[in-house]
Amino acid sequence: VDDLLARVRQGERRAVARAITEVERSASRAREIVADLYGDTGKAHIIGVTGAPGAGKSTLVNQLARVLRQRGLQVGIIAVDPSSPFSGGALLGDRIRMQDLAGDEGIFIRSMASRGNLGGLARATSSVAKVLDAAGFEAILIETVGAGQAEVSIADAAHTTIVVEAPGMGDDIQSIKAGILEIADILVVNKADRPGAASTVKALRLMLHMGQRQQGAAVREATGGEEDEAPAWKVEVIETIATEGVGVADVAERIAAHRAFLEQSGLWQQREAERSRQEVEQILQAHLAARLQECIDPGERDRLIQAVAGRQVDPYAAAERLFGQLVADC
Amino acid sequence: VDDLLARVRQGERRAVARAITEVERSASRAREIVADLYGDTGKAHIIGVTGAPGAGKSTLVNQLARVLRQRGLQVGIIAVDPSSPFSGGALLGDRIRMQDLAGDEGIFIRSMASRGNLGGLARATSSVAKVLDAAGFEAILIETVGAGQAEVSIADAAHTTIVVEAPGMGDDIQSIKAGILEIADILVVNKADRPGAASTVKALRLMLHMGQRQQGAAVREATGGEEDEAPAWKVEVIETIATEGVGVADVAERIAAHRAFLEQSGLWQQREAERSRQEVEQILQAHLAARLQECIDPGERDRLIQAVAGRQVDPYAAAERLFGQLVADC
Repeated sequence: VDDLLARVRQGERRAVARAITEVERSASRAREIVADLYGDTGKAHIIGVTGAPGAGKSTLVNQLARVLRQRGLQVGIIAVDPSSPFSGGALLGDRIRMQDLAGDEGIFIRSMASRGNLGGLARATSSVAKVLDAAGFEAILIETVGAGQAEVSIADAAHTTIVVEAPGMGDDIQSIKAGILEIADILVVNKADRPGAASTVKALRLMLHMGQRQQGAAVREATGGEEDEAPAWKVEVIETIATEGVGVADVAERIAAHRAFLEQSGLWQQREAERSRQEVEQILQAHLAARLQECIDPGERDRLIQAVAGRQVDPYAAAERLFGQLVADC
Repeated sequence: VDDLLARVRQGERRAVARAITEVERSASRAREIVADLYGDTGKAHIIGVTGAPGAGKSTLVNQLARVLRQRGLQVGIIAVDPSSPFSGGALLGDRIRMQDLAGDEGIFIRSMASRGNLGGLARATSSVAKVLDAAGFEAILIETVGAGQAEVSIADAAHTTIVVEAPGMGDDIQSIKAGILEIADILVVNKADRPGAASTVKALRLMLHMGQRQQGAAVREATGGEEDEAPAWKVEVIETIATEGVGVADVAERIAAHRAFLEQSGLWQQREAERSRQEVEQILQAHLAARLQECIDPGERDRLIQAVAGRQVDPYAAAERLFGQLVADC
């Protein structure tokens, strides 16, 4: 066991793969592994890549991995699919990736699926990132499919978040969601050779501008007219054609610039503390859920649930009854 | 206070609007209101409508509301936007809706946004649906934007889930996600007059067919060759042009058929029990989070978090320490 983790620390690929499999299979093993490796983590730059399906995230991530490799970095890729993969889509994507980047010892690729448990997925993704971090991977790209809350929680785990759009997806008011702009450190319009690319770029820049003005106004209101003194990061829109590698080096530059910005402004450490807080809270939630299973008699719980379903007891009263058996006074 | 809820029970619109606002603003008030109204809920048919941005969900929901009204039902619409709406997109959408369906006393429309708290949103949505249910709305359409976990949790709250696709969005392997098929009771291809509609319909039918075969195989494996005896619902693909009302009556028929199927098969009650279970667990989680805030000294928590961020303590050990202070033996 300890031997496995010693080999992970030396960056041995088979040990890394094995440790990740163990992390994914068993929450208690994940706990042991993360606790053991934890002191050797905190060095990697974790980069989230997110955006709507079909925007070309996988291709961009592959190309980015290539560019980062050329700059001498060890690169980990974690491809996260929050929808459950009963079609084998993730596997197919994997195989294409593997062929594309095969034979490079400095790149490690892993796909993960949630099977409906988003909380568990966020936790597992974070643990897998830690294994890669402890193994010496210096840039870890976490790619997520989708356009909802999943990205937001993955973004919480990243130092730098890249949101990828494609022309024609981002033109109406529903699809360029403000929520995406709030999490983006870097915006990429991929497939920039497609019709409509210019208008997508324009729409995104306009929304960024509006967002910055609103932010500025909020700061002025909060400080009584004073501008915010904290150093600001400017979100830029970068056009890429990932299939041809066009613009990918620009994205890599911007990633490096964002890391430098985070470190110089003190935000790197702030984000680490915030991530640590969230992580501890997630673990606590899982502990509490487990305790719930342990402590409450299943028969009693079922009777209560049936009474709620039959409208004899309201759900708050039911929760109150269970809660009383679970929690200590303080 | 009780007067407000008495007026809600009589279906008075202003009381309904006021109660919903109170539910959204305060979790403790939501608790009171739901606990009070709970015995009068359980009659409404809750219909989730989900799918990728730009598929035309809002238009379809408006048209469906119209058709259901023509059949004499009181209709509630809850439009849920899990991304945070700092652009005012939701408000704009609202105004268009309001004009469209204005003046019909039998339709009640409400928009909700999460501001980053998906758990809270699911809870609030469920509470708002209960207010509408107790007020006598017989069909409640819950519309969600996005393509990730958000829908899955909204779908948990629905009796019937409609997934809306549009041509050109659902043609590649990434965007027709199997996860969507797992939650869909009815599949709609909207904008069916657009190029590519036929191939989207074909792709969806193929995936449904594959899914059903896989399910069948799993059942045969689990039962040693026996087919599943439980009555099966057949997911159908319905084409619509919502802007012109085409196909919307077919969707309404299929919704009614699904309700009849749920009731005859006993699944309606099964789903009620499952929803009740989830609801009680969500309330318990919220209780536990609140207890965490109350019981743990903030200074101690901050010191622990800083130690985790600095890699002196691993997050599992930190959670363990906090947990010991929080939970009773059982």
